[in-house]
Amino acid sequence: MREVYIIGIGQTPVEEHWDRPLRELGAAATLAAIRDAQIEAPQALFVGNMLSGATCGQENLGTVIADFAGFNGIEAMKIETACASGGAAVRAAYLAVASGAHDVVVAVGVEKLTDLAIEDTTGALAGAADADYEAAHGITFTALNALMMRLYIERYGVRKDDFATFVINAHNHARGNPNAMFRKPVTLEDYARSPMVAEPICILDSSPVADGAAAVVLCSADRARSLCDRPIRILGSSLATDTIGLASRREILRCEAIRRSAQLAYKQAGVTPKDIDFVEVHDAFSIVAALSLEASGFVKDGQAIPFALEGNIDIPGSLPCSTRGGLKARGHPVGASGVYQVVEAVEQLRGQAGDTQVKDCRLALTQSVGGLASVAVTHILGN
Amino acid sequence: MREVYIIGIGQTPVEEHWDRPLRELGAAATLAAIRDAQIEAPQALFVGNMLSGATCGQENLGTVIADFAGFNGIEAMKIETACASGGAAVRAAYLAVASGAHDVVVAVGVEKLTDLAIEDTTGALAGAADADYEAAHGITFTALNALMMRLYIERYGVRKDDFATFVINAHNHARGNPNAMFRKPVTLEDYARSPMVAEPICILDSSPVADGAAAVVLCSADRARSLCDRPIRILGSSLATDTIGLASRREILRCEAIRRSAQLAYKQAGVTPKDIDFVEVHDAFSIVAALSLEASGFVKDGQAIPFALEGNIDIPGSLPCSTRGGLKARGHPVGASGVYQVVEAVEQLRGQAGDTQVKDCRLALTQSVGGLASVAVTHILGN
Repeated sequence: MREVYIIGIGQTPVEEHWDRPLRELGAAATLAAIRDAQIEAPQALFVGNMLSGATCGQENLGTVIADFAGFNGIEAMKIETACASGGAAVRAAYLAVASGAHDVVVAVGVEKLTDLAIEDTTGALAGAADADYEAAHGITFTALNALMMRLYIERYGVRKDDFATFVINAHNHARGNPNAMFRKPVTLEDYARSPMVAEPICILDSSPVADGAAAVVLCSADRARSLCDRPIRILGSSLATDTIGLASRREILRCEAIRRSAQLAYKQAGVTPKDIDFVEVHDAFSIVAALSLEASGFVKDGQAIPFALEGNIDIPGSLPCSTRGGLKARGHPVGASGVYQVVEAVEQLRGQAGDTQVKDCRLALTQSVGGLASVAVTHILGN
Repeated sequence: MREVYIIGIGQTPVEEHWDRPLRELGAAATLAAIRDAQIEAPQALFVGNMLSGATCGQENLGTVIADFAGFNGIEAMKIETACASGGAAVRAAYLAVASGAHDVVVAVGVEKLTDLAIEDTTGALAGAADADYEAAHGITFTALNALMMRLYIERYGVRKDDFATFVINAHNHARGNPNAMFRKPVTLEDYARSPMVAEPICILDSSPVADGAAAVVLCSADRARSLCDRPIRILGSSLATDTIGLASRREILRCEAIRRSAQLAYKQAGVTPKDIDFVEVHDAFSIVAALSLEASGFVKDGQAIPFALEGNIDIPGSLPCSTRGGLKARGHPVGASGVYQVVEAVEQLRGQAGDTQVKDCRLALTQSVGGLASVAVTHILGN
């Protein structure tokens, strides 16, 4: 396989963009990444998106965004793996460059969720789980995550309020990110008062439904050297799946898709979890942040909460986590989040993260998770 | 890039599968292709699908089908380019093998359209066009194609009834295909009597809304030689786009996406249109069959109808077309059709096409078109 580098990043703020259509958000992030890379145009566009059909009546999204961004004629396709669609779009773009089919491509993640009535968005998001055997019974995606959190609390004897550590950390880091949706810190008291959504998941455990787009320019080694002073190399790239339904799993808290994709990425990059300087985890709910740290091998099973409570996931800390706010505080425009993670890791590796810069960082892990951890995409990036 | 071969094919009949869920159709085609290739399991699954969210409430379709087919854990993602999703899934699978990331992968196209009320299906299919600037005004996808057909008739002075040649040909060829939806021949009289849908498009100009799934196993050269006596090589693979909206085009009848993708595929394969022995075109409407033959360089612009009327697209003929019934008579389960085309081309190249076998064929072109020819995927296959 050819080596693949990132030479450009772009993003819109994450918020309720009622005045900006889907195509405009996607094109804005794409064009920002193109400008950042100082190139004219990409040869292909891979669009990560989950719900453009349900929220905007628009499919064929690859064509729509390529056209609106002014890159008429190029290869373009939409990639969907539920909440991990952004990570999967980066993976598809990686394969296109690694294959030699293209030298310079863009992966853009875009989602527009807030135009819809919230009950319709909730219904559409349930399509990330098993539509026939889970969602059909009326259970929401949040309620399914609540089952995992409840089991975690029972299994490991932790307290519900212990999960606040992930939330406080994410909001704290978002203060340094001008593109984050929630730049206001929260306290343990705020968390304890937060209304329940699906017990034990409260509002502050949950990432917000939001709109936004983020993009990265990927290119071959030759082009990276000629175009860019400081290209970031993709050292590992992997996608793995698990059963779609929670009930089919032998061990629900093991998150085999996350485990497998992390191990594949470590192996390809020739590194271990100890070598990673910071991580962007898929903290759509605080339980997912805990499970991701464990399944990715940063801590043993059941140890994520003590690890976080000891300050390891802060900046500075042994493994800063959600360094730009994460899904929780930057916001979670579903199919875009996986690309935001890569953009944010590049900001850190370039030393462009301002008040929340991780010092002396050289290796980042980003991980985009879909469904009930039924699919996971891991990338390892380095200077 | 590494060479890529096809070593297995599988398909379900195309019909109204009211008794078979989406995942079962997808898994059935996948497992049939795996059996045909005589392998145990693929390393990755690329699922072509347009409307699983709208018709079944199910996203995350890569995971769903990988899981249901028994390939727990493998890489899996959904690929969407509207009506060309099947072709794009083959393209994505091709890039995965060409890159060296995987040696053996499956591309499966699956769609289930007939469980929905027809007005809902019609609404969802309009998402292949420009949702904000075309569909929002109430125009259907068929009506947009009718505008192209009307312009063609005016521009080239052909008669509406001349388009019957594509329809009669497709139905005639479907007689030899046990998986085709309409195996009954139609006559010029049937066509002339066919009720209008959106003038000048009548019912017999239109491919049927249908359910079905088709799959191909792709692999590297080494594995192809060790696994298969008669691998089919993918000599050319390309995807190109055009503007999403018809009104943005300088010349509506030129179909630049088809033109560009065909030229890229010819160039990669090192062949010209004259070298192609038969074609599987995207005859979703008879006008698209005509425009595809022209934009792919088989005939000059405006010459597709005389070319067809002279018998060239029959078996035998100089360029047999829609040799297993095409979208028109095999049926058009939207995101699956592009994979059916590749499956059918492999049947011909292997000499397994029974009554509608094209004699001495060595080179096939398959072409999957999405939206108003706003995206096109071309593959050139050879022995």
